[in-house]
Amino acid sequence: MVEKTKAYIAGFLDGDGSIFLQLVYRKDYILGYQVRASIVFYQKQDQRKILRWLIHKLRVGYLRDRNDGIAEYTIVGLREVGIILSQLEPYLLLKRKQAQLALRIISRFGQVSRITPGILLRIAKEVDKFGKLNYSKKRLNTADTVRKYFSTHKIRPRID
Amino acid sequence: MVEKTKAYIAGFLDGDGSIFLQLVYRKDYILGYQVRASIVFYQKQDQRKILRWLIHKLRVGYLRDRNDGIAEYTIVGLREVGIILSQLEPYLLLKRKQAQLALRIISRFGQVSRITPGILLRIAKEVDKFGKLNYSKKRLNTADTVRKYFSTHKIRPRID
Repeated sequence: MVEKTKAYIAGFLDGDGSIFLQLVYRKDYILGYQVRASIVFYQKQDQRKILRWLIHKLRVGYLRDRNDGIAEYTIVGLREVGIILSQLEPYLLLKRKQAQLALRIISRFGQVSRITPGILLRIAKEVDKFGKLNYSKKRLNTADTVRKYFSTHKIRPRID
Repeated sequence: MVEKTKAYIAGFLDGDGSIFLQLVYRKDYILGYQVRASIVFYQKQDQRKILRWLIHKLRVGYLRDRNDGIAEYTIVGLREVGIILSQLEPYLLLKRKQAQLALRIISRFGQVSRITPGILLRIAKEVDKFGKLNYSKKRLNTADTVRKYFSTHKIRPRID
């Protein structure tokens, strides 16, 4: 993408989009929780053309119409979100800190061959910090939720 | 402003801002109505730093805190809005048509030495078109309002 496209998308994301980093419970996961990253752009359905333009530029993610007249363009996945944020980060103003923290968390996953309980717990704490940057008040799962899950399931995070 | 700044601001305006063109009643005006142009950017008050950055870049307009926790950065005036829009227009996607129509209407004012009833009425019709582009449903004054005012006040627009 050329500079003006990246700058435009950064402005649009700052104005009307969201970056999410969440701890999601997965009953099929040994460690119980997954870190999910996503970027969402919103627009009225009659103006969804702009979301089509975005999907064409970013080349990942999917578009869906909600029941309330809003169209959402969502990019999910650590790798996908990492690729997009690393391109937009230099141009973001409002959400730059979120982007930087998200990139740091995402790169952690790339650096380890296996997610141990200790690593997941440390990442979960970073996800908590991210939630604070996002002024998120209805966070379902925190590092504490993960810690409690470990304790109930006799998973011992090694201090390393 | 450099290209990436203009592209960023265009993206931010598309995502979270508004361009307005309105017919405003002024009891001290012989023709009764004034065309008012404005650009408004919104943000939560705890994030108003971005609006300060914008005001620093655009060098016009003023910032105010609303009672509902939202901060507004407003640029009012045909000349001021014209200067800003002519810089952003090439980078706008969602609001490009609005910007182009606004620039056309604004330049009309620059081309005439005196606003006659006929000119005001023609401009008012363009303002009506603008309202349609903005999906504005609560337009107070339209070309028709102006026409009725002229008729009540015995102002005769010359057909020219």
